[in-house]
This record gives sequence, C-alpha cells and structure tokens, in this order.
Amino acid sequence: MKRTHNCGQLNIANVGQAVLLQGWVKKIRKMGAMNFIDMRDFYGITQLIIDEAHSELIQSIRPEYVIEVTGTVVERKSKNLELPTGEIEIKVTGISIINQSELTPFQIEEDLEALEDTRMTYRYLDLRRTSMQQHLKVRAKLNSIFRSVLEYNNFLEVETPYFGKSTPEGARDFLVPSRLNRNKFYALPQSPQLYKQLLMISGIDRYYQIARCFRDEDLRIDRQPEFTQLDLEMSFATGEDVMVIVEELVKKTLKEFKGIDIKEPLLRMPYREAIKNYGIDKPDLRYDLKIHDLEEIFSNTTVKMLVGTAMPIRGIMIDQLLGKRQIEELTETAKQNGLNGFGFAKVENGIWSGSIASQLSEQEKVKILEEFEVISNGTLLLQTGPYNVISQAMGALRIHLARIFNMADLNDCKPLWVTDFPLFEWNEDEQRFEAAHHPFTMPKDCSLADFDTNKANAVAYAYDLVINGYEIGSGSQRITDPEIQQRMFDAVELTSETVERNFGWFMNAYKYGAPYHAGMGLGIDRWAMIMSNAESIRDVIAFPKNSSGIDPMNNAPDYVAEKQLSELFIKTT
Amino acid sequence: MKRTHNCGQLNIANVGQAVLLQGWVKKIRKMGAMNFIDMRDFYGITQLIIDEAHSELIQSIRPEYVIEVTGTVVERKSKNLELPTGEIEIKVTGISIINQSELTPFQIEEDLEALEDTRMTYRYLDLRRTSMQQHLKVRAKLNSIFRSVLEYNNFLEVETPYFGKSTPEGARDFLVPSRLNRNKFYALPQSPQLYKQLLMISGIDRYYQIARCFRDEDLRIDRQPEFTQLDLEMSFATGEDVMVIVEELVKKTLKEFKGIDIKEPLLRMPYREAIKNYGIDKPDLRYDLKIHDLEEIFSNTTVKMLVGTAMPIRGIMIDQLLGKRQIEELTETAKQNGLNGFGFAKVENGIWSGSIASQLSEQEKVKILEEFEVISNGTLLLQTGPYNVISQAMGALRIHLARIFNMADLNDCKPLWVTDFPLFEWNEDEQRFEAAHHPFTMPKDCSLADFDTNKANAVAYAYDLVINGYEIGSGSQRITDPEIQQRMFDAVELTSETVERNFGWFMNAYKYGAPYHAGMGLGIDRWAMIMSNAESIRDVIAFPKNSSGIDPMNNAPDYVAEKQLSELFIKTT
Repeated sequence: MKRTHNCGQLNIANVGQAVLLQGWVKKIRKMGAMNFIDMRDFYGITQLIIDEAHSELIQSIRPEYVIEVTGTVVERKSKNLELPTGEIEIKVTGISIINQSELTPFQIEEDLEALEDTRMTYRYLDLRRTSMQQHLKVRAKLNSIFRSVLEYNNFLEVETPYFGKSTPEGARDFLVPSRLNRNKFYALPQSPQLYKQLLMISGIDRYYQIARCFRDEDLRIDRQPEFTQLDLEMSFATGEDVMVIVEELVKKTLKEFKGIDIKEPLLRMPYREAIKNYGIDKPDLRYDLKIHDLEEIFSNTTVKMLVGTAMPIRGIMIDQLLGKRQIEELTETAKQNGLNGFGFAKVENGIWSGSIASQLSEQEKVKILEEFEVISNGTLLLQTGPYNVISQAMGALRIHLARIFNMADLNDCKPLWVTDFPLFEWNEDEQRFEAAHHPFTMPKDCSLADFDTNKANAVAYAYDLVINGYEIGSGSQRITDPEIQQRMFDAVELTSETVERNFGWFMNAYKYGAPYHAGMGLGIDRWAMIMSNAESIRDVIAFPKNSSGIDPMNNAPDYVAEKQLSELFIKTT
Repeated sequence: MKRTHNCGQLNIANVGQAVLLQGWVKKIRKMGAMNFIDMRDFYGITQLIIDEAHSELIQSIRPEYVIEVTGTVVERKSKNLELPTGEIEIKVTGISIINQSELTPFQIEEDLEALEDTRMTYRYLDLRRTSMQQHLKVRAKLNSIFRSVLEYNNFLEVETPYFGKSTPEGARDFLVPSRLNRNKFYALPQSPQLYKQLLMISGIDRYYQIARCFRDEDLRIDRQPEFTQLDLEMSFATGEDVMVIVEELVKKTLKEFKGIDIKEPLLRMPYREAIKNYGIDKPDLRYDLKIHDLEEIFSNTTVKMLVGTAMPIRGIMIDQLLGKRQIEELTETAKQNGLNGFGFAKVENGIWSGSIASQLSEQEKVKILEEFEVISNGTLLLQTGPYNVISQAMGALRIHLARIFNMADLNDCKPLWVTDFPLFEWNEDEQRFEAAHHPFTMPKDCSLADFDTNKANAVAYAYDLVINGYEIGSGSQRITDPEIQQRMFDAVELTSETVERNFGWFMNAYKYGAPYHAGMGLGIDRWAMIMSNAESIRDVIAFPKNSSGIDPMNNAPDYVAEKQLSELFIKTT
C-alpha cells in the first residue's frame, strides 16, 4: 500500500516521522497564510497544516475530494484531546488530488438534517458519516462474536439453500420463476427451519448459520423484505441447552457494546406473567410501570363505566401529571388497540381530577394510591373488558407513557426469556386452532398428555429472547416423535393429504432415526440496532429498502425487459 | 446436556469412567452371548459391549436407531489403532431407544453405490456418511480461516442486498416479482460487485463478505444456480495489494488442508503465456505436458495436412503409447473443440506409426523427439489452423491425456495467478468488442493511452486465481476516473442512453470522490471441493440442486397456488 498510516493512527508518539496519508477532505480552513485540512478516512481524522507553497492547489480543493499528502508528524499547539489524533498534525510537504468531488447533496456530518429518502438515494454518502460506519462496525463485530462463541462450542457453520420450496403455512413467500422448469417456482426461504431440522437428522450435531431470510409481508416502518438471522440448532439437546448457549451470546455482546456485565442467569418470565404485568409478550423492562388488576378496589364502585362489570378491570398509574393533549394521544393509542377509550384520574397535591375522578369514593382513592405506591402526584388510566383486549391495550399505553416521559435509558439493556408460550392460536376466520409458532413445536411435558384435547391451555416448549421491548429471537424444542407429530397435525386439523403434499418430504426424514433437538433463530438486524444505539434497523443495514420495499438508490425493484419475462414463461397482469 | 461425552472423545485415558453416550447404531454384531454395537455420532464411533441382561432389547434394535447408553469405559482386547476411540469400548449397564429407524434406502457407509438421484432424494441420510460430514467440516473451517485472516487485516464484513436491480449486461438474472410494486421485479445479484464498489465510495476501507450469488445460466455438471463467493474489495489499493492478501488465504488453507507449505510468492503467468503453453487460461500445473509450436520443424514438410499452411502448427506429445480407442476418444474431444481431427504419430522402440507417420522425414522424426525430450516411446498429436482454435483444442487434449494417464495427483495443489487478461472480447454476433470481464475494469498502464483505439491488444488490470485447472477467483483494479470510464463505455459502444439507464445510478456515485480500489471474488464451492478432495461441488454443498436445477429431496422448484401468482400480478404462459 502506498499510504504509510491511516487517518486514525498517528499520535504524539509519531512526532518527527515522515508519513504518506490518503483520505477525504472533511473541512478546509484558512488562517493567515496557512491552510488547515481535516482529512478523514475509515479509521479517523487527521489534521493537515499546509503552507503557502501549495496555496494554488489548495484553492482548487473542495470538501470530499480524495487527496494524498506527504509530510511530517508535528505536535499541535492547540490540542484536541477528544480525538485520538488530536495531539498532532501533519506538516505537509507534498499534496496531490486523487479524485475530485462535485458538491454533495448534503454535508457529510453527524447532525444531518437531510430527508431519509435523500439519504437513501445517496446512501454511499450517508455511509461516509462516522456514526453510520460505526453501526456497520458494531454489526460486523457482533457477527464475529457470535461465530467465535459458537465455533468454540463445536457448532458447524452450514449454508442452506436460498432456492427452496414454497410452504403454504405461515407468511407469504417470495417466489423465483424457474426458466429450466417451466411454470415452476422456487421460494426464497422465510428461515432455514426445515433445512436445519434435516441437518439434525443428518447427524450434524450442532449447526449455525448467519442466513438471509425473506418474507413477503406488508411492510411496516421497521420491517425489511429481507433480514438476517443467526440460526442455530442442537442435537441431543433441549431448549435449556439452547438457552445456555444463547445467554452466553447475550452476555458477551452486552459486555462488549454496552459495558453491562451480567453474572446471573437471564430472567425468565412465563408468557402469562408477561401479559399480566406488561400486556405484551416482549416487555421492555428498562422501566417498571406494571399493569395492575383493580377488580378488588372497585368491587363496590359507583364509577359508571365499571358498575356491574363482570369483566376484569385493569389499569396503570404513572407518577406524572398528564396534560389534555397527552390524554388525547393516549386515547388514540387505546383505540388502535381495541378500546374505545379509558377512564382516567389525576391526583395533584391531593386534588383529584379527570374523567372518573368525581365518581371515586374516598376509600377508592386511598386504595389506588396504596396499590400503585404513588406518594403525591400521578395519573391513573383504567378500563374494563375482556382480559386479553384490556391487557394488550394497557401494554400499548404503558409503552406510550414511557415514550412521553423518556423512561427507557438508551444505554441500558434488559434481556429476558419469555417462556411457556401457548401452543395454539385461535384462528377466528377459519374457526380452528392453529400452531402458534409452527406445527413442529414440542408441547411442554405438562401438556403432553392433553394438548390435543385441551388446546386453549396447551403450553409449548418455546422460548423468546426479548431485549428492551424487541423480540430478538424465538426458539423451541422440536417434535421428533412421529406419534406426537401426528397428534399435532390432527390438533390443527390438517388432513393427511395436506400434510403429505406440504410436508411429506420433510416428515419422511423423521422415519429414519432422528435425535431429539432444539434450536433458535435470532434477528441480527434488531440485535445490532440495540447494540449500536441506532434508531432503526435501516441504520444497521448497508443498503436497506424503504417502507415501500424500494431502494431509492438504484430504484429496485424495477421493470424488466419483455424478453426476460418470456424466457421465464411468465407475463405480468 | 445429558450425554457425558460424544462418540469420538473417549480413549485409554478414560478407562474406568462412568459415561452416558447417545448416537446412531452403525453396526450390530453378536459374538456368543455378547452383543457389540458400533455407535456413531458427528464426532466419531465408539464400540459398545452389551451382555445378556439386555438381549431382549438388543433384538429390537436395528441400524440407524438412535440410542442412549450408560456404562463404563474399559480397555479393549483387540484394539483398532486406526480409530481414536479404538483402544476402548463401553461396557454397557443401561441402554434405551431414543428413536427408531425404518430400513434406510441405502446403507450409511463409505463405499456407497446408490445412484446420485437417490442420494439427493435422501440427502439427510447421505450426509450421515463420514466423508460427507468431513466435506462440510472442511468448508466451515475454510470460511473460518478466511474470516480470521481478513478480520485481522482490518476487513469489515458488510452484508449487501439480495434484492437488487436487474442489469442487462452479463449473465441472465434470476427475478423476484414484487407484490408491493406491481409489475416490477427485484433481481438476485450475480455478485455483490456494484454494491462493494459503492462501499469503497462510502469510505469502507476494506470490505469482505461471504455472499450467495445467483446466475440463471444453463446448467452444466458442475454448476449450481446459487453459489457462494468470498467477495472482497480494498480502497487506496491496487491489484497487487489484493493479490498479497489472497495469497495469504491460499497459503493458509493449503497448509491447513493439504499440508503444503508454500514460502515463495505464487507463480504468475500472463494470459498469453497460459494460452501458448496450456491452451487455456486456467492451466492445471500438476502435470507439465506443454503445447509446442512446430512450424520450424515442419517448415519443409511433406506431411499432407501441413503442406503449404500459412497458419500455426501446434502439438503435444506424451511419453505414452495411445491405443486406437484412446485416439478415437481424443478425436471426439478435438471435434468438441473446433477441430475436425488431428494428425498423430506414435513411436515405439524406434518404430513410427499413426496417421502421419509414413509422411514424416527422418529429420522431422529426430527433431520431434528432441523438441519434446522424448527418449523412447511416445505419441504426438498435432494440427494446423488459427492460433486460438488450435491452442484451445490442444489444451483440451492435454487435459484429456492427463485424465487417461492419471497425471494429476489428487493430493497435490498448484495455485497460480493468471494475469494480463485481454480487456475486450470480440462479440461475433454483434460485431463489436465487449468488456471481457465487466466495463469497470481498469486497463493496465501499458494500454491506458490506446485501449480504445487498439482494442484487440488492450490488456486489463485483471487477475485470476487458478488452482489445479479451476478458476477459483477473478479480480481487477476498478476504473475510478470518470474520464477513463467514459472512454471505456465508448469503446464497447454503449450509448449514453444505455449507460444512463443501466448504470446511471452507479456511475453517479463516482462523481463524489472515489478512492482508487481493487478487489476480487473467489468461489468457495470450488475451493472447498479442492481442499476436501471431493469429486464435485455438489459434495461440499449441504443441499445442492441436480443438473436440471432441481432438488430431488423437496422437489423444488414446484408449482405454486394460483393465488400466490395473482397476488404478484403475474401469470404463467
């Protein structure tokens, strides 16, 4: 390489050295006869000091030009101790332009105000920002930690195909028309699930892969059509063994990126407890603000909305005073979550106000303050209705409140396991229970005898890793006993024809001696987002799609030539 | 984990220990009242010795059953020193069946005679064979070596999208219809080429990725619709710097897998020299057998096929005697490579025979033996015609001869760089020169002045890594100067409209300050195949496609539901 050092490397120990540096012009300043350039590369920023001899060339240099300089490292007069290179500068003896730059559509600086669409159109410029590069560094380091821990633990990296077969259960598949097999289609896998289970049957003892996954779902703000999963599976192992390994990954990465040192095993919370306390199966534990059952307090109430209800009464109370506008916003959140509103009562220096305040008895007021351990000021939101509906809505209000009052510390990290998920989910449209996760999930021992007759209460041997309100990963013990598998298919009312057509090739493999096995899939985009304090998963993906599934940089997806389609034996409609 | 050890772990040092093992029944033998089972898992084979107490259960156990045993490690009487566990066996105290197996469609053993289609249909059984698992282990270890060397050298792993934009130049794209963007299509990238060049413009100093690539080409025996590439790119670097890094990868892996320790830099061979000596740009150097120019020897010949030819005369001679059948086979190879045959002459103990033998002068005979340094017996094949046609055909004959006489040692490895490729290729159909590699490849310094006027002789700053006759990878210095890029587009007769439509978004990025950069893409499937002495790339891919692009295990690609297509706004034709 021509350069002797990079722009993040030189410090006071290098004073006197002759160097050759290459990089981008970040900033040019003129002070008297001298010019100062901040030169930037992937590794850092180094200050150049350039005298009159080069002033003609300097005049033609603009920000984002790529330049090469030779010079000597000298000690700076006014040091910048925040930069690793801040004690030195380069007294330039030679300077040349490697490449020019037009005026960039936005300045390459941290506090960028460009629209996201502009940033994405010029992604290669957005990625010049230190914070964006830092996100990619965190992501790469994260992968590196995963691999080293897993390989140390005898996990074998195996690549599974991206050209798979469409499985009608689950989310929508992306399809790839086959040219060589007319009118047939590959499906891009939603995860390597079936392949990794086959690897266990193949005798690959412990498997892992950092795999791209594809789901053709309607896009939300934080969803990408392709995403990356750390996928793993272990033979002769149970979910407990999987959790031990994954906990090691969690602890190593929290220590590396957040400086958080967790010694004890991660908290485990059964699904029911999560719903009861937080109204959601992925609670953000960086703040408390639990949902409370209030039936007892209101057992003899005259509060109109609660009088005579046979249904649960649940509420949350925050030790803050909510204004009218905030109540309106929260009401909107409640409506989006199946409520038509909520009752609220505010206490400020002993004075109660709010929609139900005038109807509260003195005893109720005392008990409310006791229940929520509120000392002076606070606001209570409550509602009555079906347990699941109320819980979900209160969970959403809890998150909304935490956002209003900035209760979640960005530097904090609260990982936990949510366990004991329901095995089945009621499908209202089809009036049947369906597999909550997938139909290869093992029932827990406690449900093994009656999971197919007591479906509403059947518990799965499934576990989610949750960090800061995000579901990071999901795993389960798999069914390896053909008899249990048959009971499961019967329970979700799949006919033997459907089973044969969709999973026959897969179930067939289990006839030839399968070990028991368990595994997990973990979302790397989200994990990297949390570890790097990024605001969105788009910030930890080099070239993401926008919320319409479009990359504004190259305009993919795009129209293609008629010939390309006819070769694939398809037509657009 | 319930097991105390795996099946490859126990040896003489463990004698006396109580253990619990789990694994597959490989073989059952009865000797008197005792039963012996070879139990297999991912790590090895352990012998179990089971007494009469369990004979009832033993009777129900069949090969490929998954079992669990408890017992004590004892020293074996008849040791098998070829196995790491061959000095011990387990005296079983308890045995149970974890899972049963039907009779497998083929036996799980090394010398397997099943048809490849059967092996692929039951891939999960084929993968139980030790050699297949060994291939996957080599592949995983290969990846691990790549990553550790590259990360040590400051390469950042960056994932680039699989949902890209179709580029009409180059091979055919696989397309993915977009549901959210009606009548538009993503293209699966043929390589991360454009994205990695953008990463250089982004200031990512050194990039690498182990990426899946997709090309919809007609399949050959050793081609898969998806394949894996080690992709890398370096800023402020030339092809020389790339070759230094890749040489380190080559040397590390050759040492690890082949025990071959190369100290000196890899051989470099200009393209023209490769064609001259080996008739191909990816010569297998495990054997010599060079092509010779014979114009001088035959300058005054009376050999009919050569008399009066103004074209080159080229030939190869092997110190072996070829039979009639072999000559016929070689003639077939010659015909597949554009010749209508060749002249041949055989010398055995001084007696000449063969199609041109009777026409050879005594002087020619002497000179032939001198030229090829043949002492006694040998066979000469020769032909006259256009240089490139003759060279290619002689190259194919050379490979064919090496196969006949087993001249390539499977354990040997002869890596080299082929350099100085032509910048352009003549497209006979379109009667124009096109980019031999891609239109972003930098001309070599010697061609910089006149590459666009002297296209036939223009040399590219491009380099291929070749091992044992396989092109493992291909790289180049990229064009980063917009002026040179424009000359290149003009040279390949791309109109500015075409450039704008296909590469406008990409070329635009080079306006904003690009560092000079170079890189390479390396085929991991082939590399793993050579390192593991596998016979085909299919043997180093967990779930490959057959030569029709089909996975016989799950029958992908397959028909899909009408609803899936209508949601994507496409119809089959």
